[in-house]
Amino acid sequence: MKAFLDRDFLLNTETAKTLYHEAAESCPIIDYHCHLSPREIYEDIRYENITQVWLGGDHYKWRLMRSAGVPEKYITGDASDYEKFEKYAEVLGRAIGNPLHHWSHLELRRFFGYEGILNRDTAPEVWKIANAKLQSEGYTSRGLIRMSNVDTICTTDDPVDNLEWHEKMDADKTFEVTVLPAWRPDKAMNLEKETYTDYLAQLEKAAGRKIGTFEDLKKALHARLDFFAAHGCTLSDHALNYVMYAPAEPEEVERIFAARLSGKIPSAEEEAVFKFAFMTAMAKEYMERNWTMQLHYGCRRDNNPIMFRKLGPDTGFDCVDNTAPSTQTAAFLGFLEEKGCLPRTILYSLNTNDNAAIDTILGCFQNDSAVGRIQHGSAWWFDDHFDGMVDQLRSLAARGYLAGFVGMLTDSRSFLSYPRHEYFRRILCRVFGEWVEQGFYPEDMETLKQIVKDISYYNARNYFNFRKKEI
Amino acid sequence: MKAFLDRDFLLNTETAKTLYHEAAESCPIIDYHCHLSPREIYEDIRYENITQVWLGGDHYKWRLMRSAGVPEKYITGDASDYEKFEKYAEVLGRAIGNPLHHWSHLELRRFFGYEGILNRDTAPEVWKIANAKLQSEGYTSRGLIRMSNVDTICTTDDPVDNLEWHEKMDADKTFEVTVLPAWRPDKAMNLEKETYTDYLAQLEKAAGRKIGTFEDLKKALHARLDFFAAHGCTLSDHALNYVMYAPAEPEEVERIFAARLSGKIPSAEEEAVFKFAFMTAMAKEYMERNWTMQLHYGCRRDNNPIMFRKLGPDTGFDCVDNTAPSTQTAAFLGFLEEKGCLPRTILYSLNTNDNAAIDTILGCFQNDSAVGRIQHGSAWWFDDHFDGMVDQLRSLAARGYLAGFVGMLTDSRSFLSYPRHEYFRRILCRVFGEWVEQGFYPEDMETLKQIVKDISYYNARNYFNFRKKEI
Amino acid sequence: MKAFLDRDFLLNTETAKTLYHEAAESCPIIDYHCHLSPREIYEDIRYENITQVWLGGDHYKWRLMRSAGVPEKYITGDASDYEKFEKYAEVLGRAIGNPLHHWSHLELRRFFGYEGILNRDTAPEVWKIANAKLQSEGYTSRGLIRMSNVDTICTTDDPVDNLEWHEKMDADKTFEVTVLPAWRPDKAMNLEKETYTDYLAQLEKAAGRKIGTFEDLKKALHARLDFFAAHGCTLSDHALNYVMYAPAEPEEVERIFAARLSGKIPSAEEEAVFKFAFMTAMAKEYMERNWTMQLHYGCRRDNNPIMFRKLGPDTGFDCVDNTAPSTQTAAFLGFLEEKGCLPRTILYSLNTNDNAAIDTILGCFQNDSAVGRIQHGSAWWFDDHFDGMVDQLRSLAARGYLAGFVGMLTDSRSFLSYPRHEYFRRILCRVFGEWVEQGFYPEDMETLKQIVKDISYYNARNYFNFRKKEI
Repeated sequence: MKAFLDRDFLLNTETAKTLYHEAAESCPIIDYHCHLSPREIYEDIRYENITQVWLGGDHYKWRLMRSAGVPEKYITGDASDYEKFEKYAEVLGRAIGNPLHHWSHLELRRFFGYEGILNRDTAPEVWKIANAKLQSEGYTSRGLIRMSNVDTICTTDDPVDNLEWHEKMDADKTFEVTVLPAWRPDKAMNLEKETYTDYLAQLEKAAGRKIGTFEDLKKALHARLDFFAAHGCTLSDHALNYVMYAPAEPEEVERIFAARLSGKIPSAEEEAVFKFAFMTAMAKEYMERNWTMQLHYGCRRDNNPIMFRKLGPDTGFDCVDNTAPSTQTAAFLGFLEEKGCLPRTILYSLNTNDNAAIDTILGCFQNDSAVGRIQHGSAWWFDDHFDGMVDQLRSLAARGYLAGFVGMLTDSRSFLSYPRHEYFRRILCRVFGEWVEQGFYPEDMETLKQIVKDISYYNARNYFNFRKKEI
Repeated sequence: MKAFLDRDFLLNTETAKTLYHEAAESCPIIDYHCHLSPREIYEDIRYENITQVWLGGDHYKWRLMRSAGVPEKYITGDASDYEKFEKYAEVLGRAIGNPLHHWSHLELRRFFGYEGILNRDTAPEVWKIANAKLQSEGYTSRGLIRMSNVDTICTTDDPVDNLEWHEKMDADKTFEVTVLPAWRPDKAMNLEKETYTDYLAQLEKAAGRKIGTFEDLKKALHARLDFFAAHGCTLSDHALNYVMYAPAEPEEVERIFAARLSGKIPSAEEEAVFKFAFMTAMAKEYMERNWTMQLHYGCRRDNNPIMFRKLGPDTGFDCVDNTAPSTQTAAFLGFLEEKGCLPRTILYSLNTNDNAAIDTILGCFQNDSAVGRIQHGSAWWFDDHFDGMVDQLRSLAARGYLAGFVGMLTDSRSFLSYPRHEYFRRILCRVFGEWVEQGFYPEDMETLKQIVKDISYYNARNYFNFRKKEI
Repeated sequence: MKAFLDRDFLLNTETAKTLYHEAAESCPIIDYHCHLSPREIYEDIRYENITQVWLGGDHYKWRLMRSAGVPEKYITGDASDYEKFEKYAEVLGRAIGNPLHHWSHLELRRFFGYEGILNRDTAPEVWKIANAKLQSEGYTSRGLIRMSNVDTICTTDDPVDNLEWHEKMDADKTFEVTVLPAWRPDKAMNLEKETYTDYLAQLEKAAGRKIGTFEDLKKALHARLDFFAAHGCTLSDHALNYVMYAPAEPEEVERIFAARLSGKIPSAEEEAVFKFAFMTAMAKEYMERNWTMQLHYGCRRDNNPIMFRKLGPDTGFDCVDNTAPSTQTAAFLGFLEEKGCLPRTILYSLNTNDNAAIDTILGCFQNDSAVGRIQHGSAWWFDDHFDGMVDQLRSLAARGYLAGFVGMLTDSRSFLSYPRHEYFRRILCRVFGEWVEQGFYPEDMETLKQIVKDISYYNARNYFNFRKKEI
């Protein structure tokens, strides 16, 4: 019987323990994809209590509470912060097998020094301990980042963003962590949305030019790409239902765009044509600028219309979209390759059934421009739990070159999420340990440690080539 | 080396043993979905030999025998009962890894006290032992149910059923088990079938009203819903290829229905439109009556045309249908939610690849109307074996709230199938035990036992709110 | 800690060790599907060095090297054989979790007696050892086959092939291994290819008759089928994106064929109609000749247009195609069954998500014409690694009759690939051992050994009914 979440949590072999404690643990974190607010980092904010930092915007936790039958009052409603915390503690205590159970306890241990169990009985004690810590020296946004040995952070930013907080952070030499913007132009692509033309107006303003055609849109985005590049951005990100392949003549794309400007919502086919044109245009720019393209797909968002009207997006009402034809993903990448416009790319699907498809698509586009030029991104969102991570690692290993993997990211909105990197690294070392101790791979600790360090840190360092903040 | 199917079968940790023997084992069974004949329960029937009870209608066993090359004569043909049993024993002895191997041996142990192995060599001995038992005190349909500690049974009934056997059972105070009807209106929905209008004629008779329009059909079904409700029914069940989303104007639905009445088989698109209208109409009624809706999908039936003509449906010629767009499932539930018509719902897909989609769809529609208002049903049919059950439990745990799960059902046509609940509970305790002993969850036996009891019994009790038979 | 790849590699229980060493190990190999060159077998060729035998045409290895960022020069380019070997050794040393790591080391041990690890440091030593062996007695194509205890080989041959090397081999009584042709008529089916009419010209010549209609095409193929049958062929093979169901009138098929002859590339719908007609026509012939039909699907080929132009097909640029509706696969088989034209069939999908669909489709068409009349083929290509094989075995066991499985094949272009059979058999024994030692199956070693031998050898022997070479 192993104690719950002890020093060797998830490390079930001696090899795993050695690899984790001697190779993985001390590696800095490159958190190349997250949703932290640059303003909150810059302003070095402090939270009043653990409910604010934990339950303020974390829709993973909200979902779990709703699933356990907790009234919305205690989730996003007007209950007190303590009442909300208490409800969460009660549900968490019974959330066997859910990654939140691990993450929450890892966070209590790493940030608050609480080594016990959180449940209904211990809620008052944990509330007191955590809140006291949150008022103590160093428990600010920057402090939490520092505690976590973070080297580089990429936020997620809209093309219209003026990046003022990134500029201020850059100028502030008291904060040594590199914080870079990442380019997420979804709103410029999603022409089926009602708010699309409003967004274009914002983009016109940001870019300082009129957008009357798709060509204009691209030029406006080029201006913003240059602006982002000047702020150190080398990474983009796209949210897609699936990666589509729908080539058409430029005139057809312009026709669809013009129709949209005149108020006509496009058909599903037109939407695919436009988005394909948009994505290929973006990829070309990334290639020219030596950026990396991230494609997040396999998600259907905002499925509960009533709750969407009440709470808006990103509040816990999304699900897996299981329709992503691998033929189109492969054809999209092949189209870009043919045109010389395929940048380094990371594919993430929310549907774990896509693992094998992704891992075999990668192999069609690898070359010597990078180790693992095309990557299979780390298990994402609904999948970044123990089974999901193990599956992604084993599939990538069996069908590709795991040693070249750029590894983990938090994808989080919270300053307390860095233990997800620890979680990932422990699982990585566990998988390696099992292979070694079963005689599946030689007990060559030097090579093993190097691969573990590479996946934990060095691969990302080499692959993204982020600039380091000058102090 | 663990002995085959011993007292601690499937229980590979001390924690699992404790949880099973101290929490799960003694829980009564709520078998909320099965295909038992209410008449056979009422009549307290007795079987002549083990072939009749085991091989009489069990297409799982037939399939296995055909796969091993056994001639149809020994399956559904005119061979003697003993010859059929002998062939099954021979195949079973080599059916390594097949759940029938476990289920059959569990049934031999639990009902017939036979602790050996069934194979070609032991067939004569087992034949003798089992048949002797079947003639002894208590080995009737009711007796087998009693032996199994069954609390409640829901049969599967057509809207035209007059529920006479349920009525008689209700009046018979010598049988203490609650047996309730469940509503399965597939025949009223499947307008693409040649026999559809014949069925409508039956429904007209049962409901005492003419059906000339879709509105009429709904009214006829309302009458039957009320009749079922008066007999204690609170549960429905639907078999669907996939859960479709195809909204249309009422006039369009009426047009399709009218065309069908005039003999025109609808197109695939029309079929989807009609079935979507049918399903939403039914859901509204379930919501109003506080019933639960079960959706079984991902199945393609009757794939062998020759054998279908010979043997009819449910004879072992069905397969997984892997086309079930999660976007449509989510949109269907979202549509109902928007209209205030989404009842408590259980989703079952025969395609295990749908697990992640289902478990993330659930989370979009949970609220405080029930713990686990939307449920991911237990691993079903081709999937209710060790790997299938483990996958369903782990996916639900990782992406939802496993502690709120309503648990197992037999889905069976046989009075000997109750050990499937034991099988499920052992697997549940095994999964929990592995988590605890690996340090993935605290060794908090009180909470663990409570969760095990909840999933084995109490969650179903609270969720379905079945009435208890008054004695 | 188990030593890397030792005598009991993959055998983690005593039961597994006994089963492997006492039942599986000594079984001869029936390699019923591979891509060996009959000419190279006949000519008893010898390789100059290990690069030629290992890296000459093995696109699995090329893919891995590209994924690790190796320049194409060292893969298919003009680097020296030693430089290429060195690069492969370096990448292989870090290819943790990839089946090539196991296969390459198994090959070094079994053929070259090298018991160490291949990596950057040991490359010079291995180069020397392997090359010396390759020049020694018995290290020719035939010698390598003999060393591997191969009983029967089926090559993969085009209908236009004159089978001259098979004829010569048949006449050569100094080589005792049975080498048979297998029929692969993809080029006669793929009318969407630009080269289709060129191929028809070749077929006309080989069949000695004009092809002006689809009827003519079938007749030409019948002539070639007879020719292949006369050379001992009893096995066909087809590569399909998916198994389609698209019945149409003969006139429609002729119309599509005629249009193609006049230069018109068919639409996707027409392509499906033609291919369905082609496949059903072929199946009918197989049935009449008592052949077996193999269907390989779930692959999208040649995804990198630039590399395709440089290197052609089968060079490492293929991926999983995840669009294969199980309803169409089932309908295709049902259509054949209805017409009395369904031969023994083996289904292979490159998409492991299809396992459950395949294993349930099988069960719809089994009968007493063979044990396992319809088979789920062994884990294929991107899936024939540890996890892929385990999944295929466990899914087939849980949903079908594993004991009737015809087992492994190499699918290889190399004379060194026979250890893949060893790899498969070890995994099979491991799976069985785990079941037995956990109490999931009785410790009945006699039955277990028989099943292991059946899957390793006897099932294939009985199922295919290959003729034995007369010496």
